[in-house]
Amino acid sequence: MRYDGRQKMELRPVEIETGYIKHPEGSVLITVGETKVICNASIEDRVPPFMRNSGKGWITAEYSMLPRATDTRNIRESSKGKISGRTMEIQRLIGRALRAVVDLEALGERTIWIDCDVIQADGGTRTASITGAFVAMALALGKLQDQNKISSFPLKSFLAATSVGIVEEHGAVLDLNYVEDSQAMVDMNIIMTGEGEFVELQGTGEEATFTMNQLQELLELGQTGIRELFDIQKDVLGELADRIQ
Amino acid sequence: MRYDGRQKMELRPVEIETGYIKHPEGSVLITVGETKVICNASIEDRVPPFMRNSGKGWITAEYSMLPRATDTRNIRESSKGKISGRTMEIQRLIGRALRAVVDLEALGERTIWIDCDVIQADGGTRTASITGAFVAMALALGKLQDQNKISSFPLKSFLAATSVGIVEEHGAVLDLNYVEDSQAMVDMNIIMTGEGEFVELQGTGEEATFTMNQLQELLELGQTGIRELFDIQKDVLGELADRIQ
Amino acid sequence: MRYDGRQKMELRPVEIETGYIKHPEGSVLITVGETKVICNASIEDRVPPFMRNSGKGWITAEYSMLPRATDTRNIRESSKGKISGRTMEIQRLIGRALRAVVDLEALGERTIWIDCDVIQADGGTRTASITGAFVAMALALGKLQDQNKISSFPLKSFLAATSVGIVEEHGAVLDLNYVEDSQAMVDMNIIMTGEGEFVELQGTGEEATFTMNQLQELLELGQTGIRELFDIQKDVLGELADRIQ
Amino acid sequence: MRYDGRQKMELRPVEIETGYIKHPEGSVLITVGETKVICNASIEDRVPPFMRNSGKGWITAEYSMLPRATDTRNIRESSKGKISGRTMEIQRLIGRALRAVVDLEALGERTIWIDCDVIQADGGTRTASITGAFVAMALALGKLQDQNKISSFPLKSFLAATSVGIVEEHGAVLDLNYVEDSQAMVDMNIIMTGEGEFVELQGTGEEATFTMNQLQELLELGQTGIRELFDIQKDVLGELADRIQ
Amino acid sequence: MRYDGRQKMELRPVEIETGYIKHPEGSVLITVGETKVICNASIEDRVPPFMRNSGKGWITAEYSMLPRATDTRNIRESSKGKISGRTMEIQRLIGRALRAVVDLEALGERTIWIDCDVIQADGGTRTASITGAFVAMALALGKLQDQNKISSFPLKSFLAATSVGIVEEHGAVLDLNYVEDSQAMVDMNIIMTGEGEFVELQGTGEEATFTMNQLQELLELGQTGIRELFDIQKDVLGELADRIQ
Amino acid sequence: MRYDGRQKMELRPVEIETGYIKHPEGSVLITVGETKVICNASIEDRVPPFMRNSGKGWITAEYSMLPRATDTRNIRESSKGKISGRTMEIQRLIGRALRAVVDLEALGERTIWIDCDVIQADGGTRTASITGAFVAMALALGKLQDQNKISSFPLKSFLAATSVGIVEEHGAVLDLNYVEDSQAMVDMNIIMTGEGEFVELQGTGEEATFTMNQLQELLELGQTGIRELFDIQKDVLGELADRIQ
Repeated sequence: MRYDGRQKMELRPVEIETGYIKHPEGSVLITVGETKVICNASIEDRVPPFMRNSGKGWITAEYSMLPRATDTRNIRESSKGKISGRTMEIQRLIGRALRAVVDLEALGERTIWIDCDVIQADGGTRTASITGAFVAMALALGKLQDQNKISSFPLKSFLAATSVGIVEEHGAVLDLNYVEDSQAMVDMNIIMTGEGEFVELQGTGEEATFTMNQLQELLELGQTGIRELFDIQKDVLGELADRIQ
Repeated sequence: MRYDGRQKMELRPVEIETGYIKHPEGSVLITVGETKVICNASIEDRVPPFMRNSGKGWITAEYSMLPRATDTRNIRESSKGKISGRTMEIQRLIGRALRAVVDLEALGERTIWIDCDVIQADGGTRTASITGAFVAMALALGKLQDQNKISSFPLKSFLAATSVGIVEEHGAVLDLNYVEDSQAMVDMNIIMTGEGEFVELQGTGEEATFTMNQLQELLELGQTGIRELFDIQKDVLGELADRIQ
Repeated sequence: MRYDGRQKMELRPVEIETGYIKHPEGSVLITVGETKVICNASIEDRVPPFMRNSGKGWITAEYSMLPRATDTRNIRESSKGKISGRTMEIQRLIGRALRAVVDLEALGERTIWIDCDVIQADGGTRTASITGAFVAMALALGKLQDQNKISSFPLKSFLAATSVGIVEEHGAVLDLNYVEDSQAMVDMNIIMTGEGEFVELQGTGEEATFTMNQLQELLELGQTGIRELFDIQKDVLGELADRIQ
Repeated sequence: MRYDGRQKMELRPVEIETGYIKHPEGSVLITVGETKVICNASIEDRVPPFMRNSGKGWITAEYSMLPRATDTRNIRESSKGKISGRTMEIQRLIGRALRAVVDLEALGERTIWIDCDVIQADGGTRTASITGAFVAMALALGKLQDQNKISSFPLKSFLAATSVGIVEEHGAVLDLNYVEDSQAMVDMNIIMTGEGEFVELQGTGEEATFTMNQLQELLELGQTGIRELFDIQKDVLGELADRIQ
Repeated sequence: MRYDGRQKMELRPVEIETGYIKHPEGSVLITVGETKVICNASIEDRVPPFMRNSGKGWITAEYSMLPRATDTRNIRESSKGKISGRTMEIQRLIGRALRAVVDLEALGERTIWIDCDVIQADGGTRTASITGAFVAMALALGKLQDQNKISSFPLKSFLAATSVGIVEEHGAVLDLNYVEDSQAMVDMNIIMTGEGEFVELQGTGEEATFTMNQLQELLELGQTGIRELFDIQKDVLGELADRIQ
Repeated sequence: MRYDGRQKMELRPVEIETGYIKHPEGSVLITVGETKVICNASIEDRVPPFMRNSGKGWITAEYSMLPRATDTRNIRESSKGKISGRTMEIQRLIGRALRAVVDLEALGERTIWIDCDVIQADGGTRTASITGAFVAMALALGKLQDQNKISSFPLKSFLAATSVGIVEEHGAVLDLNYVEDSQAMVDMNIIMTGEGEFVELQGTGEEATFTMNQLQELLELGQTGIRELFDIQKDVLGELADRIQ
């Protein structure tokens, strides 16, 4: 049994509340255990310069944490005047992952801005962001199609993410919270499509290494967790889930 | 009757939810109509350099909006690499106002960091921030006293803020929402103590001016609204309200 | 009697020297006691992007202090790489105040850049800047009309500013110098038009508060002072003063 | 046969020239095909604040490209005034990877600065940087031990990296050059220790996804390539190779 | 005869007004024709880190132009968030030149901050800055000695600067104004000591070159002009001039 | 005899390796003693805004040092987020010098970007950069003419640079290395054309001064050294040398 009483292959309770903020085209609050992220999807009717006249759309993501989302207060990146390497890595990851399941041509020359703002953090903020942002994006795209601005629904597949890792006492575990994450010897983020294919795989030995066998075990745990996340996403999206090809 | 059906001297519905985020010493979500601000108060056991060895504490505030708190998405200040003049003005105002009702010696050499993060905006974000931050600060100070880290409660008075303004159709009105605010000829923010004294008064003619009589009318409206806010704060603070001298 | 021998309702000696710098369309050196500000008005034949094709002009202000305008040397904002909150607040205030008395349509699609550079500071730099900048702007607009680039004179009214405050020994006083300002319990900046209406009112209790009666007394002092400033402005502007509607 | 005539599982020619720059404690020029990176290791006798009094050392890496390392000239990050997300990701990766094979206690309170400067780029610059930086770091540590500043050699294992990917025509291939990399559907960086364990695994579907079988194939290709890199490193390090535990 | 009626070897009228700003230890307004620079010298009782415990002082200079010192308005460097290459070059030059005539040991561990703020520009702002800053520095050092903070006067020599250049119509000329400077084929700044020795020589062919003979002619013109500047400095410094060794 | 065994008027061994980096239109590695600089010339088919529609081209230079080009590691300017004054001065100097020998009309509306990256420093990096950049630029222009993009060869003359200085023991010496440079009382950079005319002359007394006679001696030493550099450049450029008018 883990710190919080979970089994090795047990996700924390996940909840996705839609329509959380009124202005964005798509908005959810995703809660994964004690981690809470507001995911907003905004649609802009133009693309960045490098995509102009390509006939294709673009998806870009930004990620931030409230200063007191964590146990000790962090200095705001706006006060520091620059974005940390960690933030950059995460927002590049979110954008790249979402683009993998969107038919950019069907989207047309539009940009979807994804904003993931962590209001409370307890580990797994980047994977919660991806899982929640997918739903926010689906809602925004649904609205776009309902307004007849696009003809076919641009989502090609479901997309969700979770973390797995190796911790001293328990070996391979699913969905690490902050305490587990900070003690993990190996930490891996897995992003998969509804078809069970990998979109991204990032495994890191933190002053440690991992073998091929351990990798195998981690991948299996991750797949199990992500399948559950797809069920929650489907539930929340309702009729919209059927539009996904 | 105003756009949203209110009377001239009617506040929007106000709600203050305490314990909103788990990590900060004090945390509230304040809702004023459609405006929603997370106000967190964090206590740090040291003061900025200019206050060292003064035996007194300090209170400093930061203010930010989620990019999609408003109807069109704003660029993050962390991406721009600098804080806008508007943000600077607001966070200086919040800090100054809160300091006016705190006995900094009773606080001791500690800093209270106030973070006001607007997750949804519909006018009056700076006054909602002040009204909510006062409660978050009171909660944090209550905890400090409960832990016997301070002997007397450092809050000298209640503090709340509202906006008043002159709009074309209705004349002087209380608590402007975004639509009213953007059409107002005169816009005034009033911050008062529980004793009915002014802490700050900022009246601006937006490409317009106002007379002494109009000023008088606006001040009376403001006082009415702020008295109601004090009742809500007292209700929410419960036993803590009695500690305020 | 105050530190410098003045009565409570006495302004410091004010002088406005026109044509101070040769390049700008309008240029003055305003001296208020020991405070000296160079106010330059430059006219540019285009407006910022958000005003394009509106048929209207724009006025924007920048404010700066020489490093040794004050008793101890300040680090240049260009060296720090960013503008302080105080500077931002002041330059936003100057611009907003000036726009209140200009008919932006009569100005046409032009920008007036106001530069207020404090070369010596002894309190009241922001109000001196506004009072001086009004004259610099009037000179520049006069030149524009003399060149037949505009048909009607865009100034709708006079504009001047002063500070009032409450200091321990003397109570409410007019036009605070640096020593008074740094000891004041309440500090208020008042900006008025020639018609005696308010353009902006900013009153701040510095770790203190003020009552409705004190507010009344401060406003009366301010009005007295500003009327004197209008006389000085009229004198300096000569024939141009008559063009103001 | 691939664009440049290689087999699927064939590395490009790799050369590691030691003592390339005279000042650093360790310096190599690594050439992988047409990719050339100067890797310098500098030893500083103190650690960053968060490591002080820990008795342990630290390793940090910086990565940069000459503006014309690539086919079209890139703007310098020093001119832009900020480091791109891509650069941040790479330098965090290099530092993390190197730390995985260093006994930080045996290093003592010292920082090893790794500078990877790409003077010519043709794909695989981050993996070449890691492979080269390992050698530069080993040289610097050897010098440190020869000077009797450390008693045991802090390197616990060999470390090398390569890329693998899936390209349309050829399927899974080893060590992608720029042309292949820009056309790859899946791109994976693998970092392994001399013991054959993973230090880091980063697989990305570029607007594509990959199956478990494809992952397996990529991992095998990567292992083959990395084993060859270890032989080259050993050869270059000579006697120093024997000190690695 | 030149544009403004001067002879080839004629300086523009030079005036140095002392005690211009009240706060700095030394302050002058130097006027060279239509060029006007406020030069302030501030004394700080400590040195930058690299000079600590050296027993020696330091002199550092900053240079800036008001936005409308020139014919068209320049964007403030504080707004741009960075200092231009031109400004950097000039302020490094001023500091270096002044240090050449100061006995840094006699100064003791103090920093002299030189601020040269151009309020009106018509060519030759950097040489006017040096000539004026020397006087401001002498005034500040005189005050320091009068207060018995230093025993011997740290100025070893006089210091002045002028520009010379080659213009199409007139050949070599002394003290170029803006019009001449912008048409000059060769532009040279000369800084000399009272002993007639060079401190700095910077000659630039602007898309042109110059011969050894032309160099000779320019150097002679420069010497003539600088000798006249020494007379003006001596006059202004009065008794202080005699303290210079 | 000097530290490194050279005579007073002896250059260090100079080598210029062409085609050093494969992507740029012109690329050399210049070695002057222990100083090594990669000089790349890139041609862009447009000019900066201030040159548009002038029918003329532009040349701009950037200069940088690897962090460990020197004995102690320097912080990268990209990490600091700004370029130092020294770097700005050097890159402005390189650009200005190269423009002096290019017929910008013959170049047409193109920009030549010169990148000088010092990979190892031992004094004289700016003069080595100029001497090497001239060759890189000539190579790039040769390629441009060979592709029939320009009709006449835009180089009007050769261009090379060296440093001279006065050091305590030896008096005036040619081509200072780092040790000499850091001890020199006078330091002068000389840039000349193949016709023996000056392009730029920058002489600085480092807390010292120099007489007219010393200037003369330094200029003669410089001329001697530069003539040797022209021979090396001619050798390296081969047939291209004949195209220079």
